[in-house]
Amino acid sequence: MTEKPLGADQQHCPKCAANLKMEIPVGDNRLRYVCSACDYIFYENPTLVVGAVTEYEGRILLCKRAIEPRHGLWTLPAGFMELGETLAEGAARETLEEACANIELGSMLAIVDVVHAGQVHVFFRAKLIDGAYAAGDESLEAELFSPAEIPWDEIAFPSCTIALQQYLQQKAAGIETLHTERAERIR
Amino acid sequence: MTEKPLGADQQHCPKCAANLKMEIPVGDNRLRYVCSACDYIFYENPTLVVGAVTEYEGRILLCKRAIEPRHGLWTLPAGFMELGETLAEGAARETLEEACANIELGSMLAIVDVVHAGQVHVFFRAKLIDGAYAAGDESLEAELFSPAEIPWDEIAFPSCTIALQQYLQQKAAGIETLHTERAERIR
Repeated sequence: MTEKPLGADQQHCPKCAANLKMEIPVGDNRLRYVCSACDYIFYENPTLVVGAVTEYEGRILLCKRAIEPRHGLWTLPAGFMELGETLAEGAARETLEEACANIELGSMLAIVDVVHAGQVHVFFRAKLIDGAYAAGDESLEAELFSPAEIPWDEIAFPSCTIALQQYLQQKAAGIETLHTERAERIR
Repeated sequence: MTEKPLGADQQHCPKCAANLKMEIPVGDNRLRYVCSACDYIFYENPTLVVGAVTEYEGRILLCKRAIEPRHGLWTLPAGFMELGETLAEGAARETLEEACANIELGSMLAIVDVVHAGQVHVFFRAKLIDGAYAAGDESLEAELFSPAEIPWDEIAFPSCTIALQQYLQQKAAGIETLHTERAERIR
């Protein structure tokens, strides 16, 4: 029954500070972090990452990461969805923060299950509104790449590769559908 | 700077038990719960709810809720996505738990932003494999409804209504696309 070890970040109850223990709560069927003193259950669930494939005059907007993980590699602008926003609003916010770019969002492009990281990545199609962009705080560079120039060997995350490939393949085929896939762990 | 009040459940650092405070962390742009003693940031992000519209011989599988919120109203089998599973696996697991039903998942049907609840709801199309179903622990009843019998006035959540309507409308039109929508707060 100890499949779920207490983590360094899950030692104390956020409500009353007593020690957390591992237990299957009444009416549940899996081990959770449960407070040893009060009724608090410290749930952990997958998080949402939202981003966009943004096009301008046939070129795609990428950012070179200034932060870990994958520092120095190229990514689609994307990040953790926040409370108080829709998926689409989150994708636009992340693109503004990481690439200083205002975008017009299109349809949903890809949803990637990143099970090993406890994440679901959601990408939208988008157009750059005014052609303006720059590196945000979390980026070393922001740049527009033609399809032939995309640095496929230096893409930070498999989900970005999936979204970029789908965007280009579907555009070439004249279609816009939602692609779903489970990403493999990075080697 | 106090837009984000300390909640009853966010008083102590889960890592070291010291008091949490509200602060914009370095490199961030919004208020978070931050430990006053160590470097821990207590992030809160939207959660994923996964479910399915399951059909068997032209009828749709619904469950009458045995738990709050919306006790006694009808819902599509759905619940919080867990770590270690894909969206599709979560939808199948919830259908098994709430309706004791084994399903074959189809395409993604609807994604609903439930911003006021800090949730994103994802529904799949599905077929009941063997015609067997029963009320699970969180259900008072499980039942198959023909489209004409669906209790529209007793559906627990707007996202379920959206998913059911989309399923039936798209089936009638002979199409299968992903519908996205922002749900309004329940009156």
